[in-house]
Amino acid sequence: MDESLPAVDPAVAATADDIAEMEIRGAATIADAAAEALARQAAQSDVDSPSAFRQQLRAAAKTLYETRPTAVSLPNALRYVLRGMSGETVSELRASIIARAEEFQHDLTQAQSKLGEVGSNRLRDGDVVMTHCHSTDALSCLEAALEDGKELEAIVKETRPRKQGYITAGRLRELGVPVTLIVDNAARRYLDRADHVLVGADSIAADGSVINKIGTSGLAVNARERGVPVMVAAQTIKLHPDTMTGHTVEIEMRDELEVLTDNERAAIGDEQAGEGLTVENPAFDVTPPRYVDAIVTERGQFPPESVVTLMRELFGESTGEPWEP
Amino acid sequence: MDESLPAVDPAVAATADDIAEMEIRGAATIADAAAEALARQAAQSDVDSPSAFRQQLRAAAKTLYETRPTAVSLPNALRYVLRGMSGETVSELRASIIARAEEFQHDLTQAQSKLGEVGSNRLRDGDVVMTHCHSTDALSCLEAALEDGKELEAIVKETRPRKQGYITAGRLRELGVPVTLIVDNAARRYLDRADHVLVGADSIAADGSVINKIGTSGLAVNARERGVPVMVAAQTIKLHPDTMTGHTVEIEMRDELEVLTDNERAAIGDEQAGEGLTVENPAFDVTPPRYVDAIVTERGQFPPESVVTLMRELFGESTGEPWEP
Amino acid sequence: MDESLPAVDPAVAATADDIAEMEIRGAATIADAAAEALARQAAQSDVDSPSAFRQQLRAAAKTLYETRPTAVSLPNALRYVLRGMSGETVSELRASIIARAEEFQHDLTQAQSKLGEVGSNRLRDGDVVMTHCHSTDALSCLEAALEDGKELEAIVKETRPRKQGYITAGRLRELGVPVTLIVDNAARRYLDRADHVLVGADSIAADGSVINKIGTSGLAVNARERGVPVMVAAQTIKLHPDTMTGHTVEIEMRDELEVLTDNERAAIGDEQAGEGLTVENPAFDVTPPRYVDAIVTERGQFPPESVVTLMRELFGESTGEPWEP
Amino acid sequence: MDESLPAVDPAVAATADDIAEMEIRGAATIADAAAEALARQAAQSDVDSPSAFRQQLRAAAKTLYETRPTAVSLPNALRYVLRGMSGETVSELRASIIARAEEFQHDLTQAQSKLGEVGSNRLRDGDVVMTHCHSTDALSCLEAALEDGKELEAIVKETRPRKQGYITAGRLRELGVPVTLIVDNAARRYLDRADHVLVGADSIAADGSVINKIGTSGLAVNARERGVPVMVAAQTIKLHPDTMTGHTVEIEMRDELEVLTDNERAAIGDEQAGEGLTVENPAFDVTPPRYVDAIVTERGQFPPESVVTLMRELFGESTGEPWEP
Amino acid sequence: MDESLPAVDPAVAATADDIAEMEIRGAATIADAAAEALARQAAQSDVDSPSAFRQQLRAAAKTLYETRPTAVSLPNALRYVLRGMSGETVSELRASIIARAEEFQHDLTQAQSKLGEVGSNRLRDGDVVMTHCHSTDALSCLEAALEDGKELEAIVKETRPRKQGYITAGRLRELGVPVTLIVDNAARRYLDRADHVLVGADSIAADGSVINKIGTSGLAVNARERGVPVMVAAQTIKLHPDTMTGHTVEIEMRDELEVLTDNERAAIGDEQAGEGLTVENPAFDVTPPRYVDAIVTERGQFPPESVVTLMRELFGESTGEPWEP
Amino acid sequence: MDESLPAVDPAVAATADDIAEMEIRGAATIADAAAEALARQAAQSDVDSPSAFRQQLRAAAKTLYETRPTAVSLPNALRYVLRGMSGETVSELRASIIARAEEFQHDLTQAQSKLGEVGSNRLRDGDVVMTHCHSTDALSCLEAALEDGKELEAIVKETRPRKQGYITAGRLRELGVPVTLIVDNAARRYLDRADHVLVGADSIAADGSVINKIGTSGLAVNARERGVPVMVAAQTIKLHPDTMTGHTVEIEMRDELEVLTDNERAAIGDEQAGEGLTVENPAFDVTPPRYVDAIVTERGQFPPESVVTLMRELFGESTGEPWEP
Repeated sequence: MDESLPAVDPAVAATADDIAEMEIRGAATIADAAAEALARQAAQSDVDSPSAFRQQLRAAAKTLYETRPTAVSLPNALRYVLRGMSGETVSELRASIIARAEEFQHDLTQAQSKLGEVGSNRLRDGDVVMTHCHSTDALSCLEAALEDGKELEAIVKETRPRKQGYITAGRLRELGVPVTLIVDNAARRYLDRADHVLVGADSIAADGSVINKIGTSGLAVNARERGVPVMVAAQTIKLHPDTMTGHTVEIEMRDELEVLTDNERAAIGDEQAGEGLTVENPAFDVTPPRYVDAIVTERGQFPPESVVTLMRELFGESTGEPWEP
Repeated sequence: MDESLPAVDPAVAATADDIAEMEIRGAATIADAAAEALARQAAQSDVDSPSAFRQQLRAAAKTLYETRPTAVSLPNALRYVLRGMSGETVSELRASIIARAEEFQHDLTQAQSKLGEVGSNRLRDGDVVMTHCHSTDALSCLEAALEDGKELEAIVKETRPRKQGYITAGRLRELGVPVTLIVDNAARRYLDRADHVLVGADSIAADGSVINKIGTSGLAVNARERGVPVMVAAQTIKLHPDTMTGHTVEIEMRDELEVLTDNERAAIGDEQAGEGLTVENPAFDVTPPRYVDAIVTERGQFPPESVVTLMRELFGESTGEPWEP
Repeated sequence: MDESLPAVDPAVAATADDIAEMEIRGAATIADAAAEALARQAAQSDVDSPSAFRQQLRAAAKTLYETRPTAVSLPNALRYVLRGMSGETVSELRASIIARAEEFQHDLTQAQSKLGEVGSNRLRDGDVVMTHCHSTDALSCLEAALEDGKELEAIVKETRPRKQGYITAGRLRELGVPVTLIVDNAARRYLDRADHVLVGADSIAADGSVINKIGTSGLAVNARERGVPVMVAAQTIKLHPDTMTGHTVEIEMRDELEVLTDNERAAIGDEQAGEGLTVENPAFDVTPPRYVDAIVTERGQFPPESVVTLMRELFGESTGEPWEP
Repeated sequence: MDESLPAVDPAVAATADDIAEMEIRGAATIADAAAEALARQAAQSDVDSPSAFRQQLRAAAKTLYETRPTAVSLPNALRYVLRGMSGETVSELRASIIARAEEFQHDLTQAQSKLGEVGSNRLRDGDVVMTHCHSTDALSCLEAALEDGKELEAIVKETRPRKQGYITAGRLRELGVPVTLIVDNAARRYLDRADHVLVGADSIAADGSVINKIGTSGLAVNARERGVPVMVAAQTIKLHPDTMTGHTVEIEMRDELEVLTDNERAAIGDEQAGEGLTVENPAFDVTPPRYVDAIVTERGQFPPESVVTLMRELFGESTGEPWEP
Repeated sequence: MDESLPAVDPAVAATADDIAEMEIRGAATIADAAAEALARQAAQSDVDSPSAFRQQLRAAAKTLYETRPTAVSLPNALRYVLRGMSGETVSELRASIIARAEEFQHDLTQAQSKLGEVGSNRLRDGDVVMTHCHSTDALSCLEAALEDGKELEAIVKETRPRKQGYITAGRLRELGVPVTLIVDNAARRYLDRADHVLVGADSIAADGSVINKIGTSGLAVNARERGVPVMVAAQTIKLHPDTMTGHTVEIEMRDELEVLTDNERAAIGDEQAGEGLTVENPAFDVTPPRYVDAIVTERGQFPPESVVTLMRELFGESTGEPWEP
Repeated sequence: MDESLPAVDPAVAATADDIAEMEIRGAATIADAAAEALARQAAQSDVDSPSAFRQQLRAAAKTLYETRPTAVSLPNALRYVLRGMSGETVSELRASIIARAEEFQHDLTQAQSKLGEVGSNRLRDGDVVMTHCHSTDALSCLEAALEDGKELEAIVKETRPRKQGYITAGRLRELGVPVTLIVDNAARRYLDRADHVLVGADSIAADGSVINKIGTSGLAVNARERGVPVMVAAQTIKLHPDTMTGHTVEIEMRDELEVLTDNERAAIGDEQAGEGLTVENPAFDVTPPRYVDAIVTERGQFPPESVVTLMRELFGESTGEPWEP
């Protein structure tokens, strides 16, 4: 029945193209553009009947969604805005969409700093925080705590293969935080000095599983064993209500040169890739909710077991396509 | 009372010097030299009384021991040989020491291959083994299994900072074993494909704690969580009866340049070491016995909880100095 | 004060009789009939005042409820419909009840297929699912996944004493799923081949405890130990907000002949039942929420720890009698 | 911007003074007074504009809050009442505040008995309950169960240092419950006889951590190890949405004389306090949510992982100051 | 070099044939026959030199061993007897073998009753014991406890597919023990009533893993979760020093008709075996040492982690062929 | 057959009387006296035949044992001495017993200080040790560490009901150790500051279970949860090879006045003991081996799982009466 969906506004189509061609990229940027596009569709609409208006909006949402169905933040933006559509006349409906999109966009600009304030409340003066990879959401928690006058120290895992720990280390040094850099292998030994493990998230599944940079799950298991709580900083656009569990997530395999250079390969005695030595370089892994103590969002802090409630509140119950009621 | 210990044979003194100056190095080489030196002391001795002979041997042992009291294999060799001293005449005593030293040296030459046979018995045809760092003891288990006609695959952790995993990968390729190389962070994800975790040991404490390359303990904790058994390959000269628990082991801190080059440091924005970014590079960590399934030695396989029994059998009950009865 | 509740409509009374006499049975059928009866009561009501109408509806609910207070779905249906009663006039109230009952009945017809779609999202192509007993809710997850083109395999526990696993095995064969049938004792051994444990539920307590066919809890404990996630498929009419925990559930004891025939008893040497050999045959057991990974309903998937939130949303906060506001 | 908040009603100021001077004390009494004060402020207000009214109410809330910002129930009362403020005219706003305050106060009077009914539903006839410290909320669960005709037994920990277990023991004896009094050290041994551990709470953090009398967390860990469920009885005014986790809670240190009298100190050979023997006497400890099975409130029973949902429902999402929207 | 082993005595050959053709079967019977055969070989030997005598004995052992290399008790008997061979003349060697074989045979006749006494010491008057399958070693513990005047109760799992629980139930009834028979699925529910889980063993690996009737490992995992200790009754002839871990044990697959009769298969709708419904019927599973509390033998009780020490004491260190020194 | 045992020496009878009348008391004193008595029996014996001598010694052992069969150290002393009886003539037998008794008595005098040295090796400079109750064996570990120049701190649990923690606190203050005294309820909170839990033992069962002052097991469970290792200091005379597991140990119930004075009872409202308030005051509890990291004896340190090996070495395999061979 969706076949009868009407054509969308050119502005929507343009946004869709930009998302598809990755000129619009990054979770927040995509989400913002999608909300904006729905608002424009609402503003430009010249249909007469409420049902035609609804149809148009859903058509716009569908168009946008299908550009990059795996981008977590895109369906979230669409669902959030569409859930705000209410009214009995076209003009009421239009106003509701425009207001809801504005609200979404406004919240988005404030999400990271609000998240930081929430996360900061988990930290005490003098705490030592162990980080993995680099995450601006995670960093915002530390920044907020520093602004509150708390003194912190950081133990930064280098995070092979790409060593994004260096970025975190650099940022924290700019903030005046004493940093101890360690190889990933040293994490368990240094957990005894840490009060928190703090990581970001690529996305969060409906069961509270955390999909994040490879190494997160191993760290979380060790943190539980050592009694160190694990906090995950993630804006709500990272929540993925359509993913029931990390089990079904397709993990991206990255270039093996990140792991092993050609020179290194030759030194091992492997002249040609594929002849015996395989390199596998998964970008992410899945941390089961059982090893996560808190998911920190701009809407507050949630145990992973209750993040589904937040998802339902923001994005509705539907597990179907985001443009469906 | 040790002050009255008589002077030792020049050959013993020479060996002691070589150990002290690290011209004799490596656990097996030191142990072999120490046993040899005691045999020489026994052979050269010209004392008349059994008690003087005993004194001399203890003096020799003390001299040797004090060259490098932290070398695990040294007191083991001394204790093993001295425990074999028996007889009522000088010539009986002399013969007993010489025979015992020969036995020790002979066993030592066969230890690695015997250990390999024991470890091989834990492996089935088709098994996948995950390795950490490089250990010839661990490798000998795989070699023995391959010789028995079992097909194996290996998942090799690169083992930052020094990437000894490359050595393991190279050796296994020479043996025709399909190798998958991963970064250390990917270990938990790949444990689901592994039937065994196999590592060596720097030393093993009396409570079964395993002191081994940094990262071993984190891997072992994850392996337990994933249901993969952990086997540690270690010749009995690695057993350390004087260490009651890993807690008291002083862990060597290695050069921070192994972790962070000067260029990398500069890129982080840290122009001078010591100004804010600390790098810590511990060489080893301690894996509690609870996370180890089997310690494989040339004398058989032992759960970590019963390795103390083997220590007592080989090296005696004493927790005092190795030259004391 | 309930004594003053007015007499109910004859249609309601008839439904109540049918439920009491078990002519209406099965969780869904009872729930549907109860909603229908409330709608009829609303339609037939000839009272003048809103308060009298409310009284009447509550009287009808009470009548229905008391026929089988242990039928989980019955109070759920009553609470759901009564919670929708709103309006300031009798006709508004009437309309609200009728609409709410229709909604409930409509949702009920679609619940199993919606649940199946939710559950299907937990499964990947190639997955192996271990089942216990027979549950159409559980089966609907597999059917939905097969319809999505995923290939699945099943390991079916026979499920003594009544061997309902045979029904599951038969249905799965009809669907073309390769089935391996095992005795219940073999479950732990075969968990290593399984990606999921999938079961239904007789009812689910407010704390997320799952009351289901005897053997479920033992399987769940083993699944956790082996690292296999446990999914429970249960329509929301199975939720039991009045049960705080499985501890208080009275477990039905079934006929001991299901376990031991008279011939078998005689062969053991027990000529007369009750003389020495007792047979106990509990129908259900209680799986604590800690061993369940996901409860799959037609309203989405919930960790057991947050199912209370769904209960409150659907059936209200009250823990009192279902006809009370 | 809060500087522009208008002056508050004298009645509000008086209440604020009484709270500050601890003439009003106790969680429920403070909460009741705070709600009452807001209602008075609303009733007395003579401003013209809705925005001025809102300002006034917020000013009143701020004044009240700042008297004892660490009293958990105070911001809860303020947030609850302010969340009910709605309307477009001053009179509508006034009415909404007054009604909401009344509702809050009414609920408060009934909270303990409602909580008792909820908690009673976890208990079966014949159950044995182990208690720690004294809590009227916890006691109300037992009372409700006794009123329902269930027979119970109690194992009462004396609860050093202040032995509040004696109060619990006394109350239970008055109720005719057989009581076994034990020292705290005997708890693990007696857990094998207990069906429940039942405690109250000083406050409950947003992550479900329970702050309660020292010894609670050690008991909860043992109860989990022994398989005995832990229920925490706490009215919703004990919920502390601003505390993200027990880690950040400042634990009160009480007088060391509660632990060690001067005579006892002298007998140890310590003539002057501070010379060698330090006594530490923390009043509370923090039980992680993982060791708690159920939090029983007057709004129903919640697993600790979902108590954040209840907090959001009652007190809103904000983690900022309670007088902010 | 074994090729040069001399021909064995006809009596040895006859015994070997009987073992090979399974005319001699059962762990104890085989062990007894093997020891007897070695004694005969020693008695009949007419060689002159001690080394020839040793060769002969080893040849006899090899012949016997190769008849059924998977029978656990066979190499144990051979190793035990050969380890007792000592002396410097043929007659001394002969006498030592004969005496050692007698000792072994004598101990064997008393092993079960001694084991029973050891196991009985774990039981208290009034204890309830849960059993799985049927084991005369396990039964002997109960018999010894009953003889000591302790009153016991038993919960007997039927043990599908072959329901050997009926045998246990019958024996226990003869002994006057009250028996409750349950299906295997009910085990976790009834563990709360049990003080012990008691099982036998098919064999025990060097790491303490217990190979026993399918279902043992699942029961043991549940028993640990419920806090019920697991005792395994196994004579030392069941110890298998050559098996390093249960992982390498080949598990026998038994006839699928034990699980599913042809009629039952037809009822499922599967007319021809192999067309879709696979039945798998493994006879045994492996319980990891971590879930076993005590291994009860005629030589005393051992935690699984130290059973290797007993193996070394009885059967020596060698992990090679049993006829090798 | 024991009926034929000959009469014992008057000195033995006198010792037996003194033990029976508790004039000789304390584990070490009893053990010393028992060994002494056997030596005297040997010295005084005037029998002619070796078998008569053996009979006499066994008669003496039986007489001594039966005075207090529950005193752990008594059978240990008897078994240890009798195991040393060897020789083919009466005079050889006599000499062997006298020498063995001397050895036992000599070792006994040195046991505590040797144990202290072993235990000291688990401690590092700067460590914090948490203690429970008072144990001179435990204290000797701290003394030895202090003598080695290590600085230590102690957290001393008061150990209700008898507050033996005061004795420990007093001793440690004399040794200059900074002591923090806490109530038992505060243990879990202070475990985060502790590097070790150190306790003594009343006795140790064959499976490594530790019977010790009430509260030990609850502390050990918390220590494991917090990652703090538990060391138990116990001389080998505390080992109880006849006890298979803590389950069968009869725990002494002490005077309830230790828990509740008459005044306190009256204050609770209980005028007469036995009318409603029961006080139970068990002296000991049982810590399962799984929660103990090391048992420290004068013969070295043992994981609880291998302490059975030490028992067999010292006291033999027999689980029968100590005077039986």
